[in-house]
Amino acid sequence: MTEYSELKILNTIKSPEDLKKLSGEELYALADEIRRYMITTVSKNGGHLASNLGVVEMTIALHKAFDFSTDRLVFDVGHQSYVHKLLTGRAEQFGTLRKKGGIAGFPKTAESPYDAFNTGHSSTSISAAIGIMRADALNGVKRSVVALIGDGALTGGMAYEALDDVGQQKLPLIVVLNDNEMSISGNVGGLSRHLAKMRSARGYRNFKRGFSKVLKHIPLVGSWLSDRFEGLKNRIKYFILPNVLFEELGFTYLGPIDGHDIETMTEVFDHAKKMDKPVVIHAITKKGRGYEPAEKNPEKFHGIGKFDESTGESKASFGNSAVFSDELCRLAADHKEIVAITAAMASGTGLDAFKTKYPDRFFDVGIAEQHAVTMAAGMATAGITPVFCVYSSFLQRGFDQLLHDVCLQDLKVVFGIDRAGLVGADGETHHGVYDISYLLTLPNMKILSPSSVQELRAALDWAALTNDSPCAVRYNRGVLQDREMTGDILSWECIKPFRSVCVVATGRTVETAIKVCEDLNVGLYNARSIRPMDESALSQLARAHYIITVEDGIVNDGFGTQVAANMCMRGSGAKVVTVGVPNRVIEQGSVSEQDEECGLSAEELKKTIQSLIGGIYA
Amino acid sequence: MTEYSELKILNTIKSPEDLKKLSGEELYALADEIRRYMITTVSKNGGHLASNLGVVEMTIALHKAFDFSTDRLVFDVGHQSYVHKLLTGRAEQFGTLRKKGGIAGFPKTAESPYDAFNTGHSSTSISAAIGIMRADALNGVKRSVVALIGDGALTGGMAYEALDDVGQQKLPLIVVLNDNEMSISGNVGGLSRHLAKMRSARGYRNFKRGFSKVLKHIPLVGSWLSDRFEGLKNRIKYFILPNVLFEELGFTYLGPIDGHDIETMTEVFDHAKKMDKPVVIHAITKKGRGYEPAEKNPEKFHGIGKFDESTGESKASFGNSAVFSDELCRLAADHKEIVAITAAMASGTGLDAFKTKYPDRFFDVGIAEQHAVTMAAGMATAGITPVFCVYSSFLQRGFDQLLHDVCLQDLKVVFGIDRAGLVGADGETHHGVYDISYLLTLPNMKILSPSSVQELRAALDWAALTNDSPCAVRYNRGVLQDREMTGDILSWECIKPFRSVCVVATGRTVETAIKVCEDLNVGLYNARSIRPMDESALSQLARAHYIITVEDGIVNDGFGTQVAANMCMRGSGAKVVTVGVPNRVIEQGSVSEQDEECGLSAEELKKTIQSLIGGIYA
Repeated sequence: MTEYSELKILNTIKSPEDLKKLSGEELYALADEIRRYMITTVSKNGGHLASNLGVVEMTIALHKAFDFSTDRLVFDVGHQSYVHKLLTGRAEQFGTLRKKGGIAGFPKTAESPYDAFNTGHSSTSISAAIGIMRADALNGVKRSVVALIGDGALTGGMAYEALDDVGQQKLPLIVVLNDNEMSISGNVGGLSRHLAKMRSARGYRNFKRGFSKVLKHIPLVGSWLSDRFEGLKNRIKYFILPNVLFEELGFTYLGPIDGHDIETMTEVFDHAKKMDKPVVIHAITKKGRGYEPAEKNPEKFHGIGKFDESTGESKASFGNSAVFSDELCRLAADHKEIVAITAAMASGTGLDAFKTKYPDRFFDVGIAEQHAVTMAAGMATAGITPVFCVYSSFLQRGFDQLLHDVCLQDLKVVFGIDRAGLVGADGETHHGVYDISYLLTLPNMKILSPSSVQELRAALDWAALTNDSPCAVRYNRGVLQDREMTGDILSWECIKPFRSVCVVATGRTVETAIKVCEDLNVGLYNARSIRPMDESALSQLARAHYIITVEDGIVNDGFGTQVAANMCMRGSGAKVVTVGVPNRVIEQGSVSEQDEECGLSAEELKKTIQSLIGGIYA
Repeated sequence: MTEYSELKILNTIKSPEDLKKLSGEELYALADEIRRYMITTVSKNGGHLASNLGVVEMTIALHKAFDFSTDRLVFDVGHQSYVHKLLTGRAEQFGTLRKKGGIAGFPKTAESPYDAFNTGHSSTSISAAIGIMRADALNGVKRSVVALIGDGALTGGMAYEALDDVGQQKLPLIVVLNDNEMSISGNVGGLSRHLAKMRSARGYRNFKRGFSKVLKHIPLVGSWLSDRFEGLKNRIKYFILPNVLFEELGFTYLGPIDGHDIETMTEVFDHAKKMDKPVVIHAITKKGRGYEPAEKNPEKFHGIGKFDESTGESKASFGNSAVFSDELCRLAADHKEIVAITAAMASGTGLDAFKTKYPDRFFDVGIAEQHAVTMAAGMATAGITPVFCVYSSFLQRGFDQLLHDVCLQDLKVVFGIDRAGLVGADGETHHGVYDISYLLTLPNMKILSPSSVQELRAALDWAALTNDSPCAVRYNRGVLQDREMTGDILSWECIKPFRSVCVVATGRTVETAIKVCEDLNVGLYNARSIRPMDESALSQLARAHYIITVEDGIVNDGFGTQVAANMCMRGSGAKVVTVGVPNRVIEQGSVSEQDEECGLSAEELKKTIQSLIGGIYA
């Protein structure tokens, strides 16, 4: 347990300016303090630990070499911004990490002028950085722009679109490639193999043999490095190789460099700043560095809940993900045509169980949702039933592919949409509250929203075995209730019989609604299929005075909107009141805090229903 | 004018099997016939000409080397599939190209077993091909899978995601890179520069010098090529170079090869088939080849309407695109912060005018909509007002970026959404009928839908100058009516005063509605702002008996749905009838044919309204 007050050096860092006063030794002591503080904080609050432990020295070096009060540092994904936050005046409040009203787990421009751009999803940093640079050029602003991107995020296609643009236009962007040899689940793809080659001993041997020849080709840094060559030889991991891939795209490549060597990193950054051309700095880091449990199991410590600081132990509870994966494994035993796809989320989606059981039918494409969706479409044209398990907010990246490749062709692809609804501490970029809305856009797409583990299993069964077109099964983070299922998954279950006031809930909100409605004189329906809607239930509901829809999705264009429009179009006199997530930024906090904010908590929901009952019987 | 009946050789080709009987000379004569037939057909029907003229010999060679009744040929974009269609039993019906019920301008699995996968958007082919290959592997099916992709489509990030996956997994995919040195508007990006280098004379010199050395590195093909080296030397454009970029991604690279040399292409395809590893075949072709007007102006002949076959002259009419661009140029004169962005559609969106006038404030990022959107977001954080002009259906590719980068940060980015609504002959993949639906998902996004050129200008003015957050201005292909504008763009114009039956139309449908309602006893409103909706107009409308909404977007989750839900939630007794595009595949045809199919033609709309009036006064 490390308290902020104990941290002698971090206590003196009120802004990155203060870093410049420290000696080399003090910087490493600071790095140590930062590690201990992050471990304690994440053990209490949950968060992204392994990646932040990996970038401690790199971030210190960045802040020594640049002045990000004017220079711009754009994080990719942004889960690795903790160290940056600790160095930019947010150390004292860091104990509030990921809490409601506290320090966010991702960069937030509203939180600090040192945060250049809000992130959360992968592979956006280079594009955003290019935008800033082009704006600066037009505005006559001179400053450095740095994009910090991991090797995992580099598998996302949009990063390549941006690299392609930078290289061609010769924009003097500095790309820091934080290569920790994995995205979340270990990297895949040709690029990953390419980077591995760069890291390999063979690469290092080539370096020694061809060093002087290579140096000539690196303007500016070349002569500087030549001068320092003697010193460099002693830093075993610091060597310069020509990198054909980045060079062909128009970049000068510097690396690989030891990302835990503050002095070297600072020097390389200093010189990259002066080069005035596109540069990739390839830094090798170790995920989880300095905390043994995280070094040993970086995937577990990528994003983690509370854990025991001394042992690293935590209760891994995958909830719905595990149920879905378990059912998928069960189906796959008898149905050889079923395969599973993930985009770098084997563990998060629970698919590691499937991977172990059916390695030949498991496909991890890396952080590449677009490719995953269209690949699934290709499989479906050739007699395979792909099940793509993906977080709701990440599937947004494959929206055009859903529409253009899967739905227009009406192909049988199953989407296991994990982390649907409010997600809590990760905040607004990770909420899965948009899926009902964007799935409703898609022709031929069916949308199931089970309310119990039994229905979750049944939904997958129906989608994978019975249905013959695209189908999405959405389920929240956490675990649905355990409740016996009656009737067909496409029908709406009538939990309490029709009354003049009826509640129609979907997904995890059904559990809350059951609790709330127990003592109330209302009807209660479980809308476990959002598309198709249950016409027979809707005609019953059309006779109601009030219908209250409840969903953990955006309320202006989701399930409730569809029910309201349906009532209006059928000429029902029922007035629909929609309860759900308002379509504005819902900041981090616990899911129950967010539920309360959105009127989805039991207490708030009860108030809403009671006021309507009161209106009728008043 | 070339008639099918005149085409002596093409007349004998009922399936690709028939190609195999032809001599080398006959194949070139066939190529000539195909060219003449395509030129005549496209001059009458409109279509994609230049790209198809460029792939005549390549397509013949593909069908000679493979048997695509079992092997699979996946086109990227698919606008270059005409030759393929002519060779696979569709020559006789080719005169119906792009007509209702006729041959589609893109691959269609429903049209022929030779069409492997439906396309229309860019950069999907490699992903789809991988899906097919993985399915084949599981099903024990042995066949070749070929992805045919242009150099333009290769700038799209998802193509790279897929290349990365192929290379790593060593899937024996054959990628044919059709390099015609441009996407639609001339290529951009580091990759393009890289390919240009491969094509350059320097490359060819290197080839001659290092030929034998290089050959050793190409397994299987190597020895074959060595044997044929003498012959090859005489084919000036056929040489083999090591290509570091593709090789680093795990591909064997063969090229560049003259894409107009049938014999050579066939040989290379034959051998690639035997290699059983990932191969990229880099073929150089000339867009517009064999038709002088198209060779001289391939951009104009990329996608073109009817034209005069003998001169190549056509009436270029950009309609709303030209109006939007003109207004943008006007605003940009006084507002230095305004810049324009395109994703390889400078001409189609009318932005070439802006490009000429303000070259420093014009950005073409290539086929890379994701990057374009996030780059725009980056610009907006640094004091620039970007206006991204993009076809509605292509903006789908940037959906996550719209949500995650622009809207969650509430940044001022303007979207000029061109080709909104039904688009006619390009068919279902190109319809811009989903935008209202997917834009409604986005927090902070405003949506304007002008009904006249005056309102189109006013909408852009408001979005670029007055508004301070994300705003989309949607406009159809063609030209809006010329009608004096009254009132504010955010208000709904009351064209005919309130009646018990009211029509609320938006965008181009307002023109139809005015015509239809002229003699009818109905109110008529012009909903030129879809978000925000005009609350004061809505409270008037709430008193109506029937409200008929009219939109050229999907009807199940768009403007009409919002109006219906609004009426229900405010407890109005008004019954809403929504007229618009049903959310299913609307096939190619003229826009007026599609309007009729969707109930959007004047005649159909009149019937709908009259039946409702009849219902009231009966």
